[in-house]
Amino acid sequence: MAVTTIPGYTSGTDKVPRSPVSRDEVELIKATLLFGEDDRDALRSSSEILGPQIEAILDVWYGFVGANPHLLAAFTGPNGEPDQAYLAAVRRRFGQWILDTARAEFDQAWLDYQHEIGVRHTRRGKNRTDGVRAADHIPLRFVLALLIPITTTLEPFLANGGASQDEVEAMHQAWVKAVLLQVILWSQPYVREGYF
Amino acid sequence: MAVTTIPGYTSGTDKVPRSPVSRDEVELIKATLLFGEDDRDALRSSSEILGPQIEAILDVWYGFVGANPHLLAAFTGPNGEPDQAYLAAVRRRFGQWILDTARAEFDQAWLDYQHEIGVRHTRRGKNRTDGVRAADHIPLRFVLALLIPITTTLEPFLANGGASQDEVEAMHQAWVKAVLLQVILWSQPYVREGYF
Repeated sequence: MAVTTIPGYTSGTDKVPRSPVSRDEVELIKATLLFGEDDRDALRSSSEILGPQIEAILDVWYGFVGANPHLLAAFTGPNGEPDQAYLAAVRRRFGQWILDTARAEFDQAWLDYQHEIGVRHTRRGKNRTDGVRAADHIPLRFVLALLIPITTTLEPFLANGGASQDEVEAMHQAWVKAVLLQVILWSQPYVREGYF
Repeated sequence: MAVTTIPGYTSGTDKVPRSPVSRDEVELIKATLLFGEDDRDALRSSSEILGPQIEAILDVWYGFVGANPHLLAAFTGPNGEPDQAYLAAVRRRFGQWILDTARAEFDQAWLDYQHEIGVRHTRRGKNRTDGVRAADHIPLRFVLALLIPITTTLEPFLANGGASQDEVEAMHQAWVKAVLLQVILWSQPYVREGYF
Protein backbone atom coordinates (compact mmCIF):
# COMPACT_ATOMS: atom_id res chain seq x y z
CA MET A 1 0.00 0.00 0.00
CA ALA A 2 1.02 3.61 -0.35
CA VAL A 3 0.25 6.72 1.64
CA THR A 4 -1.97 8.76 -0.64
CA THR A 5 -4.62 11.40 -0.38
CA ILE A 6 -6.95 9.67 -2.82
CA PRO A 7 -10.51 9.74 -1.44
CA GLY A 8 -11.76 6.25 -0.64
CA TYR A 9 -8.34 4.66 -1.04
CA THR A 10 -8.11 2.98 2.34
CA SER A 11 -5.43 0.37 1.71
CA GLY A 12 -3.31 -0.23 4.78
CA THR A 13 -5.68 1.57 7.13
CA ASP A 14 -7.82 0.14 9.90
CA LYS A 15 -10.88 0.90 7.77
CA VAL A 16 -10.18 -2.25 5.79
CA PRO A 17 -11.48 -5.48 7.35
CA ARG A 18 -9.33 -8.59 7.38
CA SER A 19 -9.63 -10.71 4.23
CA PRO A 20 -11.32 -14.07 4.80
CA VAL A 21 -8.63 -15.55 2.53
CA SER A 22 -5.41 -16.55 4.28
CA ARG A 23 -1.87 -15.86 3.10
CA ASP A 24 -1.36 -19.62 2.75
CA GLU A 25 -4.36 -19.83 0.46
CA VAL A 26 -2.92 -17.00 -1.63
CA GLU A 27 0.31 -18.96 -1.98
CA LEU A 28 -1.61 -21.93 -3.37
CA ILE A 29 -3.45 -19.69 -5.84
CA LYS A 30 -0.11 -18.21 -6.90
CA ALA A 31 1.35 -21.70 -7.35
CA THR A 32 -1.66 -22.75 -9.42
CA LEU A 33 -1.36 -19.79 -11.77
CA LEU A 34 2.42 -20.20 -11.97
CA PHE A 35 3.28 -16.88 -10.33
CA GLY A 36 6.98 -16.94 -9.48
CA GLU A 37 9.73 -14.59 -8.37
CA ASP A 38 10.49 -13.84 -12.01
CA ASP A 39 6.94 -12.52 -12.33
CA ARG A 40 7.32 -10.41 -9.22
CA ASP A 41 10.55 -8.96 -10.61
CA ALA A 42 8.91 -8.32 -14.00
CA LEU A 43 6.02 -6.50 -12.31
CA ARG A 44 8.47 -4.31 -10.41
CA SER A 45 10.33 -3.58 -13.65
CA SER A 46 7.03 -2.48 -15.14
CA SER A 47 6.48 -0.01 -12.33
CA GLU A 48 8.84 2.69 -13.57
CA ILE A 49 7.72 2.17 -17.17
CA LEU A 50 4.02 2.47 -16.38
CA GLY A 51 4.28 5.14 -13.70
CA PRO A 52 4.63 8.11 -16.09
CA GLN A 53 1.92 6.68 -18.38
CA ILE A 54 -0.88 6.15 -15.84
CA GLU A 55 -3.20 8.82 -17.25
CA ALA A 56 -2.73 7.57 -20.83
CA ILE A 57 -3.48 3.99 -19.71
CA LEU A 58 -6.60 5.13 -17.88
CA ASP A 59 -7.69 7.02 -21.00
CA VAL A 60 -7.60 3.74 -22.93
CA TRP A 61 -9.40 1.78 -20.22
CA TYR A 62 -12.05 4.43 -19.74
CA GLY A 63 -12.46 4.59 -23.51
CA PHE A 64 -13.17 0.87 -23.53
CA VAL A 65 -15.67 1.09 -20.69
CA GLY A 66 -17.33 4.09 -22.30
CA ALA A 67 -17.68 2.24 -25.61
CA ASN A 68 -19.46 -0.69 -23.94
CA PRO A 69 -22.87 0.23 -22.48
CA HIS A 70 -22.99 -2.99 -20.40
CA LEU A 71 -19.78 -1.84 -18.65
CA LEU A 72 -20.61 1.85 -18.46
CA ALA A 73 -23.81 0.77 -16.70
CA ALA A 74 -21.74 0.38 -13.51
CA PHE A 75 -21.36 4.15 -13.43
CA THR A 76 -24.87 5.09 -14.50
CA GLY A 77 -26.82 7.22 -12.07
CA PRO A 78 -30.57 7.37 -11.41
CA ASN A 79 -31.00 9.78 -14.35
CA GLY A 80 -29.65 7.17 -16.77
CA GLU A 81 -26.49 9.17 -17.43
CA PRO A 82 -22.92 8.29 -16.41
CA ASP A 83 -22.06 9.90 -13.07
CA GLN A 84 -18.98 11.92 -14.01
CA ALA A 85 -17.90 12.63 -10.45
CA TYR A 86 -18.10 8.91 -9.67
CA LEU A 87 -16.10 8.06 -12.80
CA ALA A 88 -13.44 10.56 -11.76
CA ALA A 89 -13.27 9.28 -8.17
CA VAL A 90 -12.88 5.65 -9.27
CA ARG A 91 -10.30 6.71 -11.85
CA ARG A 92 -7.91 7.99 -9.20
CA ARG A 93 -8.10 4.73 -7.28
CA PHE A 94 -7.74 2.75 -10.52
CA GLY A 95 -4.52 4.62 -11.25
CA GLN A 96 -3.25 3.79 -7.77
CA TRP A 97 -4.21 0.15 -8.36
CA ILE A 98 -1.87 0.06 -11.36
CA LEU A 99 0.98 1.27 -9.17
CA ASP A 100 0.09 -1.09 -6.34
CA THR A 101 -0.09 -4.07 -8.72
CA ALA A 102 3.27 -3.21 -10.23
CA ARG A 103 4.77 -2.81 -6.75
CA ALA A 104 3.84 -6.47 -6.14
CA GLU A 105 3.94 -6.33 -2.36
CA PHE A 106 1.56 -9.17 -1.83
CA ASP A 107 1.38 -8.65 1.91
CA GLN A 108 -1.50 -8.69 4.40
CA ALA A 109 -2.47 -5.06 3.67
CA TRP A 110 -2.64 -5.84 -0.04
CA LEU A 111 -4.65 -9.01 0.61
CA ASP A 112 -7.14 -7.23 2.85
CA TYR A 113 -7.57 -4.47 0.29
CA GLN A 114 -8.24 -6.94 -2.54
CA HIS A 115 -11.15 -8.24 -0.52
CA GLU A 116 -12.35 -4.69 0.04
CA ILE A 117 -12.13 -4.01 -3.72
CA GLY A 118 -14.18 -7.16 -4.38
CA VAL A 119 -16.87 -6.13 -1.88
CA ARG A 120 -17.03 -2.66 -3.44
CA HIS A 121 -17.95 -4.25 -6.78
CA THR A 122 -20.95 -6.05 -5.28
CA ARG A 123 -24.26 -4.92 -3.88
CA ARG A 124 -22.78 -5.43 -0.45
CA GLY A 125 -20.48 -2.49 -0.91
CA LYS A 126 -20.89 -0.69 -4.21
CA ASN A 127 -21.46 3.10 -4.28
CA ARG A 128 -20.88 3.53 -0.55
CA THR A 129 -17.26 4.66 -0.82
CA ASP A 130 -18.21 7.58 -3.03
CA GLY A 131 -21.75 8.15 -1.73
CA VAL A 132 -23.26 7.76 -5.19
CA ARG A 133 -26.47 6.25 -6.50
CA ALA A 134 -25.24 4.28 -9.51
CA ALA A 135 -25.98 0.65 -10.44
CA ASP A 136 -25.72 -1.33 -7.22
CA HIS A 137 -23.66 -4.28 -8.52
CA ILE A 138 -21.14 -5.26 -11.19
CA PRO A 139 -21.76 -8.81 -12.43
CA LEU A 140 -18.88 -11.19 -11.75
CA ARG A 141 -18.81 -12.31 -15.38
CA PHE A 142 -17.64 -8.87 -16.47
CA VAL A 143 -15.16 -8.45 -13.63
CA LEU A 144 -13.46 -11.69 -14.68
CA ALA A 145 -13.65 -10.95 -18.41
CA LEU A 146 -11.92 -7.58 -17.97
CA LEU A 147 -8.68 -9.51 -17.41
CA ILE A 148 -8.20 -9.53 -21.19
CA PRO A 149 -8.73 -5.88 -22.14
CA ILE A 150 -6.84 -4.69 -19.04
CA THR A 151 -3.75 -6.71 -19.85
CA THR A 152 -3.94 -6.57 -23.66
CA THR A 153 -4.13 -2.79 -23.75
CA LEU A 154 -1.24 -2.58 -21.30
CA GLU A 155 1.23 -4.23 -23.67
CA PRO A 156 1.97 -1.18 -25.88
CA PHE A 157 2.59 0.88 -22.75
CA LEU A 158 5.00 -1.76 -21.44
CA ALA A 159 6.79 -1.59 -24.80
CA ASN A 160 7.31 2.18 -24.42
CA GLY A 161 10.08 1.82 -21.88
CA GLY A 162 12.97 0.67 -24.04
CA ALA A 163 12.86 -2.92 -22.77
CA SER A 164 13.57 -5.81 -25.13
CA GLN A 165 10.70 -7.73 -26.69
CA ASP A 166 11.40 -10.63 -24.34
CA GLU A 167 11.31 -8.33 -21.32
CA VAL A 168 8.06 -6.75 -22.50
CA GLU A 169 6.54 -10.18 -22.92
CA ALA A 170 7.72 -11.21 -19.44
CA MET A 171 6.15 -8.07 -17.95
CA HIS A 172 2.95 -8.69 -19.88
CA GLN A 173 2.72 -12.29 -18.67
CA ALA A 174 3.39 -11.18 -15.10
CA TRP A 175 0.57 -8.66 -15.41
CA VAL A 176 -1.83 -11.32 -16.71
CA LYS A 177 -1.02 -13.47 -13.68
CA ALA A 178 -1.19 -10.57 -11.20
CA VAL A 179 -4.54 -9.34 -12.51
CA LEU A 180 -5.93 -12.88 -12.53
CA LEU A 181 -4.74 -13.35 -8.95
CA GLN A 182 -6.50 -10.16 -7.92
CA VAL A 183 -9.78 -10.77 -9.76
CA ILE A 184 -9.84 -14.23 -8.16
CA LEU A 185 -9.58 -12.53 -4.77
CA TRP A 186 -12.25 -10.02 -5.83
CA SER A 187 -14.56 -12.93 -6.67
CA GLN A 188 -14.63 -14.17 -3.06
CA PRO A 189 -17.54 -11.92 -1.94
CA TYR A 190 -19.54 -13.05 -4.98
CA VAL A 191 -19.27 -16.73 -4.20
CA ARG A 192 -21.53 -18.97 -2.13
CA GLU A 193 -20.42 -19.79 1.40
CA GLY A 194 -17.81 -22.54 1.20
CA TYR A 195 -17.56 -22.48 -2.60
CA PHE A 196 -14.58 -20.11 -3.03
CA MET B 1 -20.71 -31.00 -29.45
CA ALA B 2 -19.61 -34.31 -30.91
CA VAL B 3 -21.12 -37.77 -30.89
CA THR B 4 -18.79 -39.81 -28.73
CA THR B 5 -18.87 -42.91 -26.59
CA ILE B 6 -17.07 -41.26 -23.71
CA PRO B 7 -18.82 -42.17 -20.43
CA GLY B 8 -20.41 -39.15 -18.79
CA TYR B 9 -19.87 -36.92 -21.83
CA THR B 10 -23.44 -35.78 -22.30
CA SER B 11 -22.97 -32.64 -24.42
CA GLY B 12 -25.83 -32.16 -26.84
CA THR B 13 -28.09 -34.69 -25.15
CA ASP B 14 -31.30 -34.13 -23.23
CA LYS B 15 -29.45 -35.08 -20.05
CA VAL B 16 -27.98 -31.59 -19.96
CA PRO B 17 -30.24 -28.93 -18.41
CA ARG B 18 -30.56 -25.53 -20.03
CA SER B 19 -27.91 -23.03 -18.96
CA PRO B 20 -29.27 -20.16 -16.86
CA VAL B 21 -27.00 -17.89 -18.93
CA SER B 22 -28.50 -16.60 -22.18
CA ARG B 23 -26.80 -16.48 -25.57
CA ASP B 24 -27.08 -12.67 -25.45
CA GLU B 25 -25.23 -12.64 -22.14
CA VAL B 26 -22.52 -14.82 -23.68
CA GLU B 27 -22.13 -12.28 -26.49
CA LEU B 28 -21.54 -9.53 -23.93
CA ILE B 29 -18.95 -11.64 -22.11
CA LYS B 30 -17.24 -12.31 -25.48
CA ALA B 31 -17.27 -8.60 -26.27
CA THR B 32 -15.78 -7.80 -22.87
CA LEU B 33 -12.93 -10.25 -23.27
CA LEU B 34 -12.35 -9.14 -26.89
CA PHE B 35 -13.24 -12.47 -28.47
CA GLY B 36 -13.67 -11.88 -32.20
CA GLU B 37 -14.00 -13.84 -35.42
CA ASP B 38 -10.22 -13.88 -35.74
CA ASP B 39 -10.09 -15.74 -32.43
CA ARG B 40 -12.71 -18.21 -33.60
CA ASP B 41 -10.70 -18.83 -36.76
CA ALA B 42 -7.48 -19.21 -34.77
CA LEU B 43 -9.14 -21.76 -32.46
CA ARG B 44 -10.30 -23.76 -35.48
CA SER B 45 -6.80 -23.63 -36.94
CA SER B 46 -5.54 -25.04 -33.65
CA SER B 47 -7.89 -28.00 -33.93
CA GLU B 48 -5.92 -30.00 -36.46
CA ILE B 49 -2.64 -29.13 -34.75
CA LEU B 50 -3.79 -30.20 -31.29
CA GLY B 51 -5.91 -33.19 -32.37
CA PRO B 52 -3.00 -35.62 -32.82
CA GLN B 53 -1.35 -34.35 -29.60
CA ILE B 54 -4.23 -34.74 -27.16
CA GLU B 55 -2.67 -37.51 -25.11
CA ALA B 56 0.65 -35.67 -24.85
CA ILE B 57 -1.17 -32.50 -23.73
CA LEU B 58 -3.12 -34.44 -21.13
CA ASP B 59 0.13 -35.99 -19.90
CA VAL B 60 1.44 -32.48 -19.20
CA TRP B 61 -1.77 -31.32 -17.52
CA TYR B 62 -2.08 -34.45 -15.41
CA GLY B 63 1.58 -34.08 -14.49
CA PHE B 64 0.85 -30.59 -13.22
CA VAL B 65 -2.18 -31.71 -11.22
CA GLY B 66 -0.26 -34.67 -9.84
CA ALA B 67 2.58 -32.41 -8.72
CA ASN B 68 0.22 -30.14 -6.77
CA PRO B 69 -1.43 -31.86 -3.80
CA HIS B 70 -4.06 -29.10 -3.49
CA LEU B 71 -5.19 -29.90 -7.05
CA LEU B 72 -4.79 -33.66 -6.85
CA ALA B 73 -7.10 -33.46 -3.81
CA ALA B 74 -10.04 -33.21 -6.23
CA PHE B 75 -9.40 -36.82 -7.20
CA THR B 76 -8.60 -38.19 -3.76
CA GLY B 77 -10.83 -40.97 -2.55
CA PRO B 78 -11.90 -41.89 1.00
CA ASN B 79 -8.66 -43.84 1.49
CA GLY B 80 -6.60 -40.70 0.93
CA GLU B 81 -5.20 -41.98 -2.39
CA PRO B 82 -5.93 -40.65 -5.88
CA ASP B 83 -8.80 -42.57 -7.47
CA GLN B 84 -7.15 -43.85 -10.66
CA ALA B 85 -10.39 -44.89 -12.36
CA TYR B 86 -11.84 -41.45 -11.69
CA LEU B 87 -8.69 -39.75 -13.04
CA ALA B 88 -8.95 -41.87 -16.19
CA ALA B 89 -12.65 -41.15 -16.69
CA VAL B 90 -12.17 -37.40 -16.34
CA ARG B 91 -9.17 -37.57 -18.64
CA ARG B 92 -11.25 -38.80 -21.56
CA ARG B 93 -13.74 -35.96 -21.16
CA PHE B 94 -10.88 -33.48 -20.72
CA GLY B 95 -9.46 -34.61 -24.07
CA GLN B 96 -12.85 -34.11 -25.68
CA TRP B 97 -13.03 -30.66 -24.10
CA ILE B 98 -9.83 -29.69 -25.92
CA LEU B 99 -11.41 -30.70 -29.23
CA ASP B 100 -14.72 -28.98 -28.40
CA THR B 101 -12.94 -25.76 -27.41
CA ALA B 102 -10.91 -25.77 -30.62
CA ARG B 103 -14.07 -26.44 -32.64
CA ALA B 104 -15.42 -23.13 -31.26
CA GLU B 105 -19.08 -23.84 -31.94
CA PHE B 106 -20.39 -21.59 -29.24
CA ASP B 107 -23.99 -22.70 -29.68
CA GLN B 108 -26.75 -23.56 -27.22
CA ALA B 109 -25.50 -27.16 -26.75
CA TRP B 110 -22.04 -25.86 -25.91
CA LEU B 111 -23.48 -23.23 -23.55
CA ASP B 112 -25.64 -25.75 -21.72
CA TYR B 113 -22.71 -28.11 -21.37
CA GLN B 114 -20.46 -25.40 -19.92
CA HIS B 115 -23.01 -24.96 -17.15
CA GLU B 116 -23.07 -28.71 -16.62
CA ILE B 117 -19.26 -28.74 -16.38
CA GLY B 118 -19.42 -25.96 -13.79
CA VAL B 119 -21.98 -27.81 -11.71
CA ARG B 120 -19.86 -30.97 -11.86
CA HIS B 121 -16.99 -29.09 -10.20
CA THR B 122 -19.14 -28.09 -7.21
CA ARG B 123 -20.69 -29.99 -4.35
CA ARG B 124 -23.97 -29.77 -6.22
CA GLY B 125 -22.71 -32.14 -8.88
CA LYS B 126 -19.23 -33.46 -8.28
CA ASN B 127 -18.53 -37.23 -8.27
CA ARG B 128 -22.03 -38.14 -9.48
CA THR B 129 -21.14 -38.54 -13.15
CA ASP B 130 -18.57 -41.19 -12.34
CA GLY B 131 -20.16 -42.59 -9.19
CA VAL B 132 -17.03 -41.93 -7.14
CA ARG B 133 -16.40 -40.82 -3.56
CA ALA B 134 -13.66 -38.23 -4.00
CA ALA B 135 -13.49 -34.69 -2.60
CA ASP B 136 -16.97 -33.23 -3.02
CA HIS B 137 -15.98 -29.79 -4.38
CA ILE B 138 -13.25 -27.98 -6.30
CA PRO B 139 -12.74 -24.44 -4.95
CA LEU B 140 -13.49 -21.74 -7.51
CA ARG B 141 -10.14 -20.07 -6.86
CA PHE B 142 -8.31 -23.03 -8.37
CA VAL B 143 -10.73 -23.45 -11.29
CA LEU B 144 -10.07 -19.84 -12.29
CA ALA B 145 -6.33 -20.00 -11.67
CA LEU B 146 -5.95 -23.03 -13.96
CA LEU B 147 -6.44 -20.66 -16.89
CA ILE B 148 -2.71 -19.97 -16.81
CA PRO B 149 -1.19 -23.47 -16.70
CA ILE B 150 -3.78 -24.77 -19.19
CA THR B 151 -2.97 -22.13 -21.79
CA THR B 152 0.74 -21.71 -21.06
CA THR B 153 1.49 -25.39 -21.45
CA LEU B 154 -0.52 -25.46 -24.67
CA GLU B 155 1.80 -23.05 -26.46
CA PRO B 156 4.59 -25.53 -27.34
CA PHE B 157 1.96 -27.92 -28.73
CA LEU B 158 0.51 -25.13 -30.87
CA ALA B 159 4.04 -24.46 -32.15
CA ASN B 160 4.40 -28.09 -33.30
CA GLY B 161 2.17 -27.63 -36.33
CA GLY B 162 4.45 -25.65 -38.64
CA ALA B 163 2.52 -22.39 -38.15
CA SER B 164 4.41 -19.08 -38.04
CA GLN B 165 5.27 -17.49 -34.71
CA ASP B 166 2.51 -14.92 -35.29
CA GLU B 167 -0.04 -17.65 -36.02
CA VAL B 168 1.02 -19.57 -32.91
CA GLU B 169 0.63 -16.43 -30.83
CA ALA B 170 -2.82 -15.77 -32.34
CA MET B 171 -3.91 -19.33 -31.50
CA HIS B 172 -2.51 -19.00 -28.01
CA GLN B 173 -4.35 -15.73 -27.40
CA ALA B 174 -7.57 -17.24 -28.76
CA TRP B 175 -7.14 -20.15 -26.37
CA VAL B 176 -6.64 -17.79 -23.41
CA LYS B 177 -9.90 -16.04 -24.31
CA ALA B 178 -11.82 -19.27 -24.95
CA VAL B 179 -10.71 -20.85 -21.69
CA LEU B 180 -11.49 -17.67 -19.77
CA LEU B 181 -14.93 -17.54 -21.39
CA GLN B 182 -15.57 -21.11 -20.31
CA VAL B 183 -14.27 -20.82 -16.75
CA ILE B 184 -16.46 -17.73 -16.38
CA LEU B 185 -19.45 -19.85 -17.39
CA TRP B 186 -18.27 -22.61 -15.03
CA SER B 187 -18.25 -20.06 -12.20
CA GLN B 188 -22.00 -19.42 -12.44
CA PRO B 189 -23.04 -22.30 -10.14
CA TYR B 190 -20.50 -21.09 -7.56
CA VAL B 191 -21.90 -17.59 -7.37
CA ARG B 192 -24.59 -16.13 -5.10
CA GLU B 193 -28.03 -15.69 -6.60
CA GLY B 194 -28.04 -12.53 -8.69
CA TYR B 195 -24.29 -11.95 -8.38
CA PHE B 196 -23.08 -13.65 -11.59
